[in-house]
Amino acid sequence: MKLPRAIASVNGKKSPLEDATIPILDRGFLFGDAVYEVIRVYQGRLWRGGEHFQRLRNSLQAARTSDIDMDGLANQVLDTIRVGAFTEAIAYIQITRGTAPRKHAFPQDTPPNVVYFVQEFADPYVEQRARGAAVLTQPDLRWQRCDIKSTNLLANVLAMQAAVEAGCIEAILYRPDGTLTEGTHTSFFGVRDGVLLTTPTSPAISPGITRQLVLQLSERTRIPVCEHSLTRDDLPRVSELFLTGTTTEVLPIVRVDDLRIGDGTPGPITRRLQQAYRDDIREFLAH
Amino acid sequence: MKLPRAIASVNGKKSPLEDATIPILDRGFLFGDAVYEVIRVYQGRLWRGGEHFQRLRNSLQAARTSDIDMDGLANQVLDTIRVGAFTEAIAYIQITRGTAPRKHAFPQDTPPNVVYFVQEFADPYVEQRARGAAVLTQPDLRWQRCDIKSTNLLANVLAMQAAVEAGCIEAILYRPDGTLTEGTHTSFFGVRDGVLLTTPTSPAISPGITRQLVLQLSERTRIPVCEHSLTRDDLPRVSELFLTGTTTEVLPIVRVDDLRIGDGTPGPITRRLQQAYRDDIREFLAH
Repeated sequence: MKLPRAIASVNGKKSPLEDATIPILDRGFLFGDAVYEVIRVYQGRLWRGGEHFQRLRNSLQAARTSDIDMDGLANQVLDTIRVGAFTEAIAYIQITRGTAPRKHAFPQDTPPNVVYFVQEFADPYVEQRARGAAVLTQPDLRWQRCDIKSTNLLANVLAMQAAVEAGCIEAILYRPDGTLTEGTHTSFFGVRDGVLLTTPTSPAISPGITRQLVLQLSERTRIPVCEHSLTRDDLPRVSELFLTGTTTEVLPIVRVDDLRIGDGTPGPITRRLQQAYRDDIREFLAH
Repeated sequence: MKLPRAIASVNGKKSPLEDATIPILDRGFLFGDAVYEVIRVYQGRLWRGGEHFQRLRNSLQAARTSDIDMDGLANQVLDTIRVGAFTEAIAYIQITRGTAPRKHAFPQDTPPNVVYFVQEFADPYVEQRARGAAVLTQPDLRWQRCDIKSTNLLANVLAMQAAVEAGCIEAILYRPDGTLTEGTHTSFFGVRDGVLLTTPTSPAISPGITRQLVLQLSERTRIPVCEHSLTRDDLPRVSELFLTGTTTEVLPIVRVDDLRIGDGTPGPITRRLQQAYRDDIREFLAH
């Protein structure tokens, strides 16, 4: 296994990522009884850290996992970034319901396990952000609380693998009625009749932090926007489509399955939002 | 953490269960990208071992995880039972898609991680099997491939915790249309108009091995039986109800939420099947 440079922490114990272990009785391992976040580090700084730690707290609450010292955790992560001299990186954080004998119900008096790692990140999407990429649609087989960012990700894994095998960058998931929900690890937006549309927040999707920022940037740049679900049948009438996500940022989609979107190149609204997104990061880094 | 005596194996490396660890980059830990089995050990022998290992293979195939040497694994587990002199025990087996950098799509050339433990088991259900127990109904929020015995169990955990907090032994899950599917870690049967009913196998439920045996025992003991789903609305017309499972065996349910089932004691069909189940185990152990 070849890894980018990375430092891990398991309940405060630091090690190279590949050496970090967790007991097999950890409930994250046995039950997927865990929630997580991925935060982008630009120039050594946590991008949208506050929102990510708040969402982590929301996930913990929704999963009824004990709260943790979130400020303390944020400081630990920042310390690891500093000590490791990370500049372009991701911080992955996972909190589990702790280590306990295997029984479905919550263990008593068991502290959560707090795991994170900071890993160098070489942006793999530079070319796709310029030219656009293809996605595959796949049935959305996930559970009904996708608003909880849990590690129950086997449905996401299988859909993403199908996408990769089809030469696509991501799978966009759809419900039995044809409603498109989101990607396996991204949100998505479409432009129909000049209006930017994205799936409304609900238990069916993850409340994407980049998604939320893009909604704000749309308003700031006077792009008409509406939180409204697209369906598979809408796709032929969509002039632009793009993904959003922590590492994906704003990434144009120019093909869905066998369907070309627009003229097959990134559209003007997507371009404006990509620019606005980069400007927002630049502004953040300037202060 | 106080544990019953247990020996674990992680890719062949044996240790006391509480000392066994797995890398945090294991995909079971990060993605719930893992399948599992729990096998009951009676008098040092694996009960229905063949069926469990076959189901494990089915889960691996459905999750597109590489197959493993299943006979070799079975022999390892049996060896651990013998070396550890386990008599009444459970064998827990979990296979993950291996250790790899965190990316949703399958890693290349990564062997699965094979984890198991054998643990002493003191049957906790003796009294409930005699007197009957209460269950709680809960919405079925799980994903749509519950036929894959994966570790994506957060929905099960949350429903089971609600049951425990209501003083119940298990949660029975229902779909939005009121159809009852199964328990969080058990199957269930009901008797309506003298006919034994249980949810038909489909991607919505786990293909329970005890469930399958009880279907066979019903035929052998001339109990009319039909694979047909019950709904919440059927419950007032159900004269008997029981759970089945590897450690649960056949366990009478005498209350669902606030509703008493039958006369509030285990019914005659349940009793016959409990006896037939014990007889089947006794016959197995005699040979």
